[in-house]
Order: sequence, then structure tokens, then C-alpha cells
Amino acid sequence: MLTANYVGHGQVSTAEVVEAPPAPGFVQIAVAYTGLCGTDLHIVHGNMDARVTTPLVFGHEMSGTIAALGEGVSDWQVGQPVTVMPLVWDGTCPGCLEGHTHICQNLEFIGIDSPGSLQALWNVPANTLVALPEGLRMDHAALVEPVAVAVHDVRRSGLVAGQTAVVVGGGPIGVLIATVARNVGATVTVVELDPTRRAGIEALGFATLDPSAGDLAAAVEDLTGGKGADVVFEVSGAAAAVRSTTALAKVRGTIVIVAIHPTPREIDLQRVFWRELTILGARVYERRDFEGAVALLAAGVIPADTLITKIVPLSGTGEAFEDLAAGRAMKVLVDVAGQK
Amino acid sequence: MLTANYVGHGQVSTAEVVEAPPAPGFVQIAVAYTGLCGTDLHIVHGNMDARVTTPLVFGHEMSGTIAALGEGVSDWQVGQPVTVMPLVWDGTCPGCLEGHTHICQNLEFIGIDSPGSLQALWNVPANTLVALPEGLRMDHAALVEPVAVAVHDVRRSGLVAGQTAVVVGGGPIGVLIATVARNVGATVTVVELDPTRRAGIEALGFATLDPSAGDLAAAVEDLTGGKGADVVFEVSGAAAAVRSTTALAKVRGTIVIVAIHPTPREIDLQRVFWRELTILGARVYERRDFEGAVALLAAGVIPADTLITKIVPLSGTGEAFEDLAAGRAMKVLVDVAGQK
Ligand SMILES: [Zn+2]
Ligand SMILES: [Zn+2]
Repeated sequence: MLTANYVGHGQVSTAEVVEAPPAPGFVQIAVAYTGLCGTDLHIVHGNMDARVTTPLVFGHEMSGTIAALGEGVSDWQVGQPVTVMPLVWDGTCPGCLEGHTHICQNLEFIGIDSPGSLQALWNVPANTLVALPEGLRMDHAALVEPVAVAVHDVRRSGLVAGQTAVVVGGGPIGVLIATVARNVGATVTVVELDPTRRAGIEALGFATLDPSAGDLAAAVEDLTGGKGADVVFEVSGAAAAVRSTTALAKVRGTIVIVAIHPTPREIDLQRVFWRELTILGARVYERRDFEGAVALLAAGVIPADTLITKIVPLSGTGEAFEDLAAGRAMKVLVDVAGQK
Repeated sequence: MLTANYVGHGQVSTAEVVEAPPAPGFVQIAVAYTGLCGTDLHIVHGNMDARVTTPLVFGHEMSGTIAALGEGVSDWQVGQPVTVMPLVWDGTCPGCLEGHTHICQNLEFIGIDSPGSLQALWNVPANTLVALPEGLRMDHAALVEPVAVAVHDVRRSGLVAGQTAVVVGGGPIGVLIATVARNVGATVTVVELDPTRRAGIEALGFATLDPSAGDLAAAVEDLTGGKGADVVFEVSGAAAAVRSTTALAKVRGTIVIVAIHPTPREIDLQRVFWRELTILGARVYERRDFEGAVALLAAGVIPADTLITKIVPLSGTGEAFEDLAAGRAMKVLVDVAGQK
């Protein structure tokens, strides 16, 4: 079968490999679609070379059906539609022992630390499977993983109906957070520099703000009757955006750090102190977030057709990253089942 | 009567004024002692010149007895021992309307924004009074305000018995936080650069760490079996200390920002994300914190005699700030009743 690999030096290439049967406790999945995300882009750009072993079959946002069961797996059946929560924890570190297995101190992320879903037949531990309902389209189901990120971020923020959320950064995760926040019953504004992205976000029914257009804090004060936002999601990864977040949040407001910030960022701690703000990190998801994401996609809450900009064959994976890097695509799916 | 005033340009001087009777809704207090704190030092150093109107009778950590009641005050009696929670809120801003009156968006702090307690007869709104129990010494009671800060910080952190707390910065507030945290049932370590301060803190029964002595994060890992601290209190105000806090906290740990940071500080948001840390601002106190502080002082939990380094007459106020600035004193009280 064909696999798409990160081979180092910014290069992606395909390779033919012989498929292996699932080991005991594992399940083999016939992968339908695999979505490409910002983390995959980081891998391709070489930013994670210290962590990954090449060649790496990558990819972790996926949908598929069970093709074979390894020894000892009895809860699942061949033919069932599934997705995978790509986390493997040790169960023994202090983080796990306090119940936070999703951020295990020795977490293995499938598709980064072990082979991912850019291959037609993919073997994963049975306990990573999440069932998909009949009728959920396979292309839409490839969005479960990023939607689960958004569900986790919103849940962790404590956002409730009637509150105001500001999402700083209108990329795919920002749009998904905005969608989940709106579904909770919040009023949502998305802050995004790029006018094309802003237009797309407005077409989805969200208010937007251009951070280069003037005083962002004053604009958010206007929107909230002088109060400030209940919750601010930092999804941009930009230093200037981080500095702005503390000015946007209400007294006792919450700022959720979703984006990756590879270097330390300046934060106005005077404002954190003055308004008794809360800054929270939010990383990946727990099983209930994954199940929540499946439910939202099945209910049609997520504008999947709008978000999926392009579907490419497995051989087009490398090229697709150029579109992603250039900001020309929201979400690109690889048609893994189609193979060529 | 004599008053101690900040008169600008780093100068403190005393002035004779004619005492005024309490206005309707106000109470006149015969001040016993007034403690000097870091905020007062900021005022004297001119750091708050943009905010204060000079000459300013300052001071806000105090004890005393009621000397006279203004019109309409019926809940209090002349002769009662009291302290003052020096906050006046508008009750109408969005912060107040959500119940956070102690961090009102238009908060007036008595002793900074209006006259404070470095005067023998001090008029304050009756609703700022907090009763003191018979038998609580007046010098000890002058510590209620800073102890209330510590009670608020620890309560806001969510620290519970059996957990581990690291207090970064062993000044007066740091020592009070450590004391309150220990009283909650936590294991407490204080991080302090100054060896004299470290010795004093150890004499109070706390473990200490010298941040210049090696890898602080490794030391905290050792103390916690590889887990990290449940709660880290940033009380130092130092940029390097802020950077260290994220490395000290456990998965889902909490960092409380207590100190004033006049300029933005670099924070390792990658770690905040990776461990899903929480960073909380904590400012002043609520009434229950003040009442909690009174109870802790009355119960002898706070090592008041050790913390009170010096008691000076009102005329010695200016000189006392030199001791504080030089780090030669933990807590200096001004004997306001003594007057001279
Ligand atoms: Zn673990
Ligand atoms: Zn208010």
C-alpha cells in the first residue's frame, strides 16, 4: 500500500510498504480521509525534527472503517465506522494519577511519535477508537479531531450561554472554537488580520474585528457595554495578539491559550492582577470532547463543507502543504482510500 | 493632631491639622497602629505620583477603636475595637454587577485615593469597618490587612490540605501566604534569594530554596516526587521569577500572580499549554478574607511578634521607609496613638 511520509529537510514523499496485520489489542482501520493540520505543517517545516523519527508516516485527523481486529479485541466489529483519538498515555505519571491522562507527562501522540493515518491500512490500539454514527459522511468525520480540540477549549474556558467570547485568530481551529462557542449560546467575535479570511468567517455568521483597524480593546468594550469579554481564546500564535488579550477580558475574565508559542511571550501581568484574570492552557482533548465533537458533526452544527477547501489524493500530500503554508486553504483532506 | 503625609518628590513629612467630625454614614476611629507596606513604599518612591494627590495622608494597614459615630450610623458603638477594609466601590460597574466589588472597575483605595490612617483620628465609611475581638492586641491587629491579602490569595488558588505550595519571594506578603497555606494543611516551600530572609523564614518552620543555588525546577521536582507544585505563588515581582514559575507547577497546576509587575513579563506559554496550567491574578481581598484574617490573628496562627520588626512614632515614618527600602525590616508599625 501507499504511505505519505515526512522524510526530513522539509520533504514529503510517498512510499510503498507491505501492510502488517494488527498486533494483539490493536485494530486495523481502512482509512477513508486524513485531514492535514497546523501540527503536520510544523513537522513538514522541520520544526519538530528533534522529536520525530524519519521517515514518518504522519497524519492524525481521520475517518475510516474497521478492517481487522487484533487478538483479544472483542468490543469492535469489522466494518464499523470509526475515528481515532490519537493519544497514548502511560497511566503511571503524576499527571495520569491525578486523572489528566490526556496531558500525561509522557504522552505519545500517534502520527507524530508513532505512525499516522496517511496510509490505507492503519493499526492503532483498540482503546483509541471512537465510534461514528451511521450517516455521518466520511469526509465530515475527518474533522472530528480538530472539532474535539475546539470542544475541549470551550469546555475548559467555562463559557456559558449569554456570555461573550472573542476568538483571536481565524484559522481552522479559531473558526471551530467560534462555532462551538456559538453553539453553547455565547455571542462570538473573531479577530483576524486577513481580509479574505474575515469575509469567510462573516459568511459563517460571525462578527469579526480587524486588529489593524484601530483600538481592539475599545472595540470589544463597545461590544460588551464597557465590560470586556467573558472569555478570550488566543488561537493566533502571535506575540502581539497575546499582549492584546489581557486588554480584552472582563474583570475575572478568562484567557485560553490554544496556540503554540515556541518562545516566551510578554504578558501584561499588571492587568492580570488588576482584573483578577485567569489564563488557562488548553491542550488536545479528553474522550468526552471527542464524543462531543462526533455529536456536533452528526447534528450538522459544524460547517464542514465550507471548511473543507480541498480534497487531494495521497500523492498530492506534499503539494497540499504548500497551499496550507500560503494560507490558501482552511482544511485540506487527503483521500486515502482513493490511494493514487 | 499630627498626620504623616507623602508630599511628593520622595518626601514624607508630618503636619498638624484640625480634626474633623465624621460625616453622615462615617465613623471616626482613634487609630492605634498603622503598618507600612510595599504599596506605601511605592507611593514614597514616586511610582504612584500619577494617581495620588499630594499632600496625601497615607497608610491603610491599621487597628484602632471607634471614637465617634456620624449621623445615621447605628450598627457600631464608641469604644469598639475595629480595623478597616480600605475599599470603596461604585456598585454599578460591570465588575460590581457580577459580584466582584473588591475589584470594582472604579475602585477607590482608602489611603491612596483618599486620606489614610497615619493620623490619630481617621474618618471612614461605616461599611468599611471590621470588628476585632476583645483580647486581640492592637499591634497584632494592624496586620489584619496584609493577612487578608494572604487569605485571599490562598483561597483564590484553591489550595487544599495535603497539597504542595511554592511561594516565590519571602517578603512580608510571601511569609504570610506561606503561613496561611500551611494552616490550610499544605506543605510549603519558600523561594528567597536573600540569605538573612531565608534564615528568618526557616526559623518560622518553613523549607526554603535559594533560586541562585541551582536548578529550581529540579529541586521542586525532587520535593514532589517528579510531580511539580500544586500551587505556585509569584510574590517577588521579579521577571526571572515569573519565568521560573511555569517550570515549577504540576500538570494542571496553578500559578497565582500576587506581586506588582509594572512592565509586561515573559511567560513560557508553551509550558502553560503543555501542562494545561492556570495563571490567576489575585488582588486585595473580600470581606470574608478580612474576617478570616482577624480569626487567624486571634487564634495565634500568624507569627505577629516575629513579623513586626519595629515600632516607630508618627514622626519616624519617613525614616522607617529607608529601613523598608533597604530590606532591613519585615513589618514596621507606626504607633499613631502615641503621636509624637
Ligand atoms: Zn502519564
Ligand atoms: Zn464597580
